[in-house]
Amino acid sequence: MNDDLPKGFRAGTAQANFKKAGRDDLGLLVSDSPCVLSGLFTQNAFKAAPVVICQEIARRGKPVRAVLANSGQANACTGDKGLENCRETQAMLSANTGLSPDEILPISTGVIGRHLLMERWAAAVPALVRSLGARDAEAFTRAIMTTDAFPKFASRDLELSAGRVRLTVMAKGAGMICPNMATMLCVALTDALVERQCWQAMFRAAAGKTFNRVSVDGDTSTNDTILGLANGVAGVSVASGPDHELFENALTDILGKVAYMLVQDGEGASKVIHITVSGARDDADAERAARSVGHSQLVKTAVYGGDANWGRIITAVGYSGADFEPGRVSLTLCGVECFSCGQPVNEDKEEVLALLLREKDIHVAISLGDGPGQYVFLASDLGHEYVSLNADYRS
Amino acid sequence: MNDDLPKGFRAGTAQANFKKAGRDDLGLLVSDSPCVLSGLFTQNAFKAAPVVICQEIARRGKPVRAVLANSGQANACTGDKGLENCRETQAMLSANTGLSPDEILPISTGVIGRHLLMERWAAAVPALVRSLGARDAEAFTRAIMTTDAFPKFASRDLELSAGRVRLTVMAKGAGMICPNMATMLCVALTDALVERQCWQAMFRAAAGKTFNRVSVDGDTSTNDTILGLANGVAGVSVASGPDHELFENALTDILGKVAYMLVQDGEGASKVIHITVSGARDDADAERAARSVGHSQLVKTAVYGGDANWGRIITAVGYSGADFEPGRVSLTLCGVECFSCGQPVNEDKEEVLALLLREKDIHVAISLGDGPGQYVFLASDLGHEYVSLNADYRS
Repeated sequence: MNDDLPKGFRAGTAQANFKKAGRDDLGLLVSDSPCVLSGLFTQNAFKAAPVVICQEIARRGKPVRAVLANSGQANACTGDKGLENCRETQAMLSANTGLSPDEILPISTGVIGRHLLMERWAAAVPALVRSLGARDAEAFTRAIMTTDAFPKFASRDLELSAGRVRLTVMAKGAGMICPNMATMLCVALTDALVERQCWQAMFRAAAGKTFNRVSVDGDTSTNDTILGLANGVAGVSVASGPDHELFENALTDILGKVAYMLVQDGEGASKVIHITVSGARDDADAERAARSVGHSQLVKTAVYGGDANWGRIITAVGYSGADFEPGRVSLTLCGVECFSCGQPVNEDKEEVLALLLREKDIHVAISLGDGPGQYVFLASDLGHEYVSLNADYRS
Repeated sequence: MNDDLPKGFRAGTAQANFKKAGRDDLGLLVSDSPCVLSGLFTQNAFKAAPVVICQEIARRGKPVRAVLANSGQANACTGDKGLENCRETQAMLSANTGLSPDEILPISTGVIGRHLLMERWAAAVPALVRSLGARDAEAFTRAIMTTDAFPKFASRDLELSAGRVRLTVMAKGAGMICPNMATMLCVALTDALVERQCWQAMFRAAAGKTFNRVSVDGDTSTNDTILGLANGVAGVSVASGPDHELFENALTDILGKVAYMLVQDGEGASKVIHITVSGARDDADAERAARSVGHSQLVKTAVYGGDANWGRIITAVGYSGADFEPGRVSLTLCGVECFSCGQPVNEDKEEVLALLLREKDIHVAISLGDGPGQYVFLASDLGHEYVSLNADYRS
């Protein structure tokens, strides 16, 4: 057990048997003192009940105290009853802790379209509250895993001018991953002192550069939520210039690290494809091209198979909708130039490429011309395991 | 051998060993008399050399005589040399037949980024010309297959007021299928008399309702081409009102039949998903929702696995970008209502659905509200075979 949460935060987990027996599927994070909240939520029109409720709390702008998480049931597409059930779980935790329901942020992941099993919640919440005490990020992260192969969390201490603060990020996600303003589920905790609007702005910027630039399967979930809780217990503010920059860079870095883990653990994924587009007319065009390549089933299966089929990458750039001159496009795969200003090159490098494609991290660099636009996107490959995992996910 | 081409057309095939030995990979269609041409081409920015040349011929608006097709090499992303090689294949056929190069439409399919093997072309073209004579659609269609599991063609005789005409459509395609204004490769022949602008307009409309509404993997190819050749040999015009309508309906119907075959033969596909969206604000919104569902890896794998995971369908509607009220959305899967006005229903129908999902044709009906917008889209499922076929396509 690692003592890796920031000061003033405690975690707990319990087993409610929502989907699979023999594992913790309820997680709780509580701060000893009120926290400033930042939140980013899915852009999917069908927002899960816990997303709707977290958004209500975030809009209110009041301090919060706890995150109540479950796996096995997403409580998405569950209509009015789904909202009632979600509020009932807040009430259960409130009754067992004395916290106000409005201070409790619910987050859920799992099967869509089924109602929460309320008897199992009622039976497990007291044990969940009793388990509180550990400051262990891993146990909480394990409780929110679904098809994840490993828990995704990272922690870092920062020396600021007025003292030391800690940042801890815990996330889950392996499928239905194409975050849009947030990831599947992610909680970031800090004991730094930070003002609400500044915390939200930092979060939005850091997520934009990290979680919003990864994809496993292009499916944006109904439950994507990223919560940031700052309790200020370290008594160290991040308001001033250099400290603010140091803190924001660390936040971006640590979110990037966890976002990379999401792609690395993409369902059935064996490789992470790093797609860098440069020379585009603008960043939006670079993004179009990069996303198109990262979402192409043909590119993803070729990378899975270690096949240097770079024509599929160029094809995906071609239908991306980005505006460019085909005759000025160049492509480098694993450091080997394959296509230069619209012409194929290095046709004799097949054997070298076959070796390079055995690596776990595959680098694709595309230049669209000499414009200033650029974008980096991370995508997983697509293999047999993805199909196996998703053909019968619910049983 | 079937005598199923329209009057005045002859076909031939030959073996050039472009990729695999022991099969015909060159196909030729020749009309005894000049044909009115209609053409639709890929929207991909990287247009293969034969697409560029067909577009030049189509723009010129002059009558054409022949289609020269090959599989095994796409001649896409091959730059200036690719264009030269393509013109050289026209010249070879011209030298062997006396046809003008400008009357010869080249179409290619296969591996992207490699140059045509010109010696093999030179060796095989004389045999290709000698083979001309059969009026067999199947042999030509087989010569342009790549990963296709079966040849895709259909023929129909129509009784118009002035006599009988025939329509024959031949297509190939199984992967990199998300046609945009055309499909991978498709040739439609008729012996009806039809004026050029009318033929092009009919084609555009018919393809819009058929080929442009199917997807295997969401990848729009560099080589998508659909050519229509009308030689008028039957001496029967389709200019007048009822004949025009009869002919256009038959064209739409027969293109729809062949487009269905493309999805049915989607690489590794075992099922065809028929996605009907209605009640949308407008047709464009209905299309957004239908395409989003048809492209969702999670929906496609669930259908492959026979898993009634309708939440994934709703999720894909949710991130489609269509404008609707989530509380007014309903979903029927295989005739069973699963989601009604934003609430889950029929939660006890799992066993019935499991049985219904064993069918080869899976019907998904989504209502977004009470607007006039609607759209129908056909998509394949996503299974292990797709991954196997595409992880190592080139070897």
